[in-house]
Amino acid sequence: MRTHFCGLIDETLIGQSVTLCGWADAARNMGQLVFIDLRDHEGIVQIVAEPTPAADNAALLEVAARVGYEDCLRVTGTVRRRQAVNDKIKTGQVEVVAERIELLNKAEPLPFHHHENPGEDIRLKYRYLDLRRPEMQHKLRTRTRLVSALRRYLDARGFQDIETPILTKATPEGARDFLVPARMHPGEFYALPQSPQLFKQILMMAGFDRYYQIARCFRDEALRADRQLEFTQLDMEFAWVTERDVQDLTEDMIRTVFREVIGVELANPFPRMTYAEAMRRYGSDKPDLRIDLELVDVAEQVKDCGFAVFTAAARDPNGRVAALRIPGGATLSRKQIDDYAAHAAKFGAKGLAYAKIDGSGAVSSPIAKFFDESAFAALLAHVGAGNGDIVFFGAGAYATVSEFMGALRLKAGREFNRVQDGWKPLWVTDFPMFEWDEDAQRYVALHHPFTAPAVDSIDELRANARTAVSRGYDMVLNGNEIGGGSIRIHRPQMQAAVFDLLGISPEEQRAKFGFLLDALKYGAPPHGGIAFGIDRIAALMAGTESIRDVIAFPKTTTAQCLMTGAPSPVEEAQLAEVHIQVRRPQP
Amino acid sequence: MRTHFCGLIDETLIGQSVTLCGWADAARNMGQLVFIDLRDHEGIVQIVAEPTPAADNAALLEVAARVGYEDCLRVTGTVRRRQAVNDKIKTGQVEVVAERIELLNKAEPLPFHHHENPGEDIRLKYRYLDLRRPEMQHKLRTRTRLVSALRRYLDARGFQDIETPILTKATPEGARDFLVPARMHPGEFYALPQSPQLFKQILMMAGFDRYYQIARCFRDEALRADRQLEFTQLDMEFAWVTERDVQDLTEDMIRTVFREVIGVELANPFPRMTYAEAMRRYGSDKPDLRIDLELVDVAEQVKDCGFAVFTAAARDPNGRVAALRIPGGATLSRKQIDDYAAHAAKFGAKGLAYAKIDGSGAVSSPIAKFFDESAFAALLAHVGAGNGDIVFFGAGAYATVSEFMGALRLKAGREFNRVQDGWKPLWVTDFPMFEWDEDAQRYVALHHPFTAPAVDSIDELRANARTAVSRGYDMVLNGNEIGGGSIRIHRPQMQAAVFDLLGISPEEQRAKFGFLLDALKYGAPPHGGIAFGIDRIAALMAGTESIRDVIAFPKTTTAQCLMTGAPSPVEEAQLAEVHIQVRRPQP
Repeated sequence: MRTHFCGLIDETLIGQSVTLCGWADAARNMGQLVFIDLRDHEGIVQIVAEPTPAADNAALLEVAARVGYEDCLRVTGTVRRRQAVNDKIKTGQVEVVAERIELLNKAEPLPFHHHENPGEDIRLKYRYLDLRRPEMQHKLRTRTRLVSALRRYLDARGFQDIETPILTKATPEGARDFLVPARMHPGEFYALPQSPQLFKQILMMAGFDRYYQIARCFRDEALRADRQLEFTQLDMEFAWVTERDVQDLTEDMIRTVFREVIGVELANPFPRMTYAEAMRRYGSDKPDLRIDLELVDVAEQVKDCGFAVFTAAARDPNGRVAALRIPGGATLSRKQIDDYAAHAAKFGAKGLAYAKIDGSGAVSSPIAKFFDESAFAALLAHVGAGNGDIVFFGAGAYATVSEFMGALRLKAGREFNRVQDGWKPLWVTDFPMFEWDEDAQRYVALHHPFTAPAVDSIDELRANARTAVSRGYDMVLNGNEIGGGSIRIHRPQMQAAVFDLLGISPEEQRAKFGFLLDALKYGAPPHGGIAFGIDRIAALMAGTESIRDVIAFPKTTTAQCLMTGAPSPVEEAQLAEVHIQVRRPQP
Repeated sequence: MRTHFCGLIDETLIGQSVTLCGWADAARNMGQLVFIDLRDHEGIVQIVAEPTPAADNAALLEVAARVGYEDCLRVTGTVRRRQAVNDKIKTGQVEVVAERIELLNKAEPLPFHHHENPGEDIRLKYRYLDLRRPEMQHKLRTRTRLVSALRRYLDARGFQDIETPILTKATPEGARDFLVPARMHPGEFYALPQSPQLFKQILMMAGFDRYYQIARCFRDEALRADRQLEFTQLDMEFAWVTERDVQDLTEDMIRTVFREVIGVELANPFPRMTYAEAMRRYGSDKPDLRIDLELVDVAEQVKDCGFAVFTAAARDPNGRVAALRIPGGATLSRKQIDDYAAHAAKFGAKGLAYAKIDGSGAVSSPIAKFFDESAFAALLAHVGAGNGDIVFFGAGAYATVSEFMGALRLKAGREFNRVQDGWKPLWVTDFPMFEWDEDAQRYVALHHPFTAPAVDSIDELRANARTAVSRGYDMVLNGNEIGGGSIRIHRPQMQAAVFDLLGISPEEQRAKFGFLLDALKYGAPPHGGIAFGIDRIAALMAGTESIRDVIAFPKTTTAQCLMTGAPSPVEEAQLAEVHIQVRRPQP
């Protein structure tokens, strides 16, 4: 139906006849002269309908005069040099003198103009119009190029792209499963996978050696701004590898796709950091290294002061007293300091101490009174605080202090413009194997229950569960965990021991993971892998905060598709067929 | 962990030290000499553990002696020329003299040996062992290469790989939807997509121009041998195209992937056939052209005979009397003829007439008595029947006769070895727009309700609905419909008119397809597409009858995963959370 794309018409085509299809981005009717900006996914070109000696001239002008915004057109004409060059568009040197204009489909008045940015609800309802906008085209097409580049990389290296089931068994990874009633099995249900974790491990035991899948995953969790009910991960698994094999290949892969898709050269190699170091310096297991602020431990400096909150935390082996120095932070007002305290409170802080040092070196701090003058000066010196700075202090349990001080670091980094441009990837390694869940009074897996411990001995793991380190690793980029993986357990005895430590009864192990425990018995190879969050990486590459901008048909934070109206009620007969009924609230 | 793959060790490596990982395919302990066949996905190489002057010799032999079937090993050794060459394996010229053998994971006795072919239930339960078998590795890897080749082809041609939702709204394509209760919306449900049909059309309206997706689709239908609850299609859509644009590109694509994946050169161009011709000559809209038998219409020859069944059908404008000549079929016994009649009955035949012509030209036929001798001879001559042949005759409604005679053609083709080797692709075009559903007393769409009619005028379509031809097309290969598509309706008025003809009320149109009708109003471009059945194409390429052989984790015909045990009962609390309960049978 067409010979060229609108956005690719250039001076090499001058004098040639072309047929173009697209939308009327704008139409200006000057009486005997009509200008139409014709748009396709490649860009815009100017169409001119003007009086010529041709016989069907009147008909041409009549059609051109009727063209309105977003009408779908097919135009045949001749390319010529444009008199008034338009530097704003790629095709600005040329225009197409129309010989024939077909109005393929007339558009009704649109709910919004694509130069506007209406509310997201309107954009999602009329997603087909929203996506026509060049900036949304760019974002989605960036995602497409990312996925294509990843596949190219992996296909060239012997990875097998293998599909795993969507209708499967309830998976054990913490989040809620989506359930699907089974028509042929009354009272039974499939679950949608939270990840292909067990299937990919099984594929390694099945001899596929290297696997990947751009896999749809499902978690029925409260939607936060950056979560969707369904999300996409690049899921990978390797047989007969160590963690360095997985890390080296995927690090090179990520460097390659950043280069190919957005022309960015990431560090080579990525910096590496243990979980312990990341928590100590940045208060986060996904530190944003673009921000140059760091936490400083001050337990030694405060352990003998008169402030019980500090001394108790400083002397507790599971406690922490940490400081965050913000250069230039002395400008913070009382109210702004209260904002910081409120922010810290959201992450578990019971209070937030500070010391402000004004331009002349005068210190004002509610906690100065608990210190000798020289001890306080030594404390500030240890933190490196100078004139014009503010220092925040947090004290309490190690994990809590790290978390809220890490959150303050991010806030201060943003607000004091200390976020450098560019890309800061790193590996975080040596995660704890378990976290102790105070509420449940049991261990929970920090990665997942299939992650191998760093020790080979079951006895050693049992004896030191609380401090055991796993063979897990995360890839972090600009403060986002973009990938996470581990070497997996490949011996059935170790897997059972870890299930035991997680408080999973033998019956539950058998019911939920029987097939895994069986599979491990038949010569399972050592294996490991990783999964990358495609939505997040695409959003980072496209330069957008919201992953909804890189998903063609996302759901809202209330789990709805505003375009199709999903979810929706269904007929009683359909429910009966799958042996369920709606549970009405008890009166 | 390894330097080479087992199956790739060759003479160029003689004298070199290699480290290999794999499974013990066999182990032969000859006392002071142990032979191990070590297998990975590339193949098998022989490992020899033999006495050498080295100090750890005893330890090596001790480990080697313990190696059993499917133990997972890591072996370091030196490649040398083999004395007894084994022509059956790629590496048969060489062997690896072990210096170190690590037993990475001991295998318990296996439920079956991979040289056996146990029942499919056992294979599916222990899928990880089944898939280790070289023939299953080959089948799954053929699928992987198919998908990779398709993506390469499409990525190079500007197609955008865009993901559409899995949690969506009930779709309208006839089959039953899988339902997913929505936790945040009590009493409401998502549905799993039967195809991304409406989303891909929306993507064309959204300016993506050319789309593809290797898409998971879901149909809750009774499972036949060649159906799965979830299946995979290559889903494609193009804006601003005619049917020839879609057909030409995808025909070239299929030719390309057959060449790249299995080295087969398909016809260029594919033959083309209308639906009417396919039904007339082959009694099928997916004719297997490898079989050289054809149906012959004989209404003219029988319309005045004395057999009411024939004359009624011959004179009915919606009737058909067709003959199938089977060369050499006179050898069929009475019982075998009954088998053919029973087979025809399965496809709707009320009876099956025949005429047998023995080697001397004597005719035996239960229907000969209804004809003048010359008329019967003329009938047989028209069919081309000669000595040694049998001719089957079917009479009745056109569609029914075509179907059962088409089924007989396939049966005869197989049983008389008339299925040629090789590949016979074709396009079938000019499908009817509608079928009349006698039970429901309404039209149903032959493709789907979004398929454009060949006529542009709504009035003309309404006036001739029963005979209207659509712009749909199928790609057929060796009797399998491997792809089906159409040019879609792109004007809202035509879409509404087709919905009307299909008996969909305005309220239902609005509720189910409101967003489509809205989207068509805003300058929707002409568009069309196609979807290919990946499971079937992969099975054809891998040379297997069952699509389960090219799906890593298929479900049984009773919709179960024998490995994981899905579906399964879930806890009451989980059901309560999503506001449903199991509907117990009424007593």
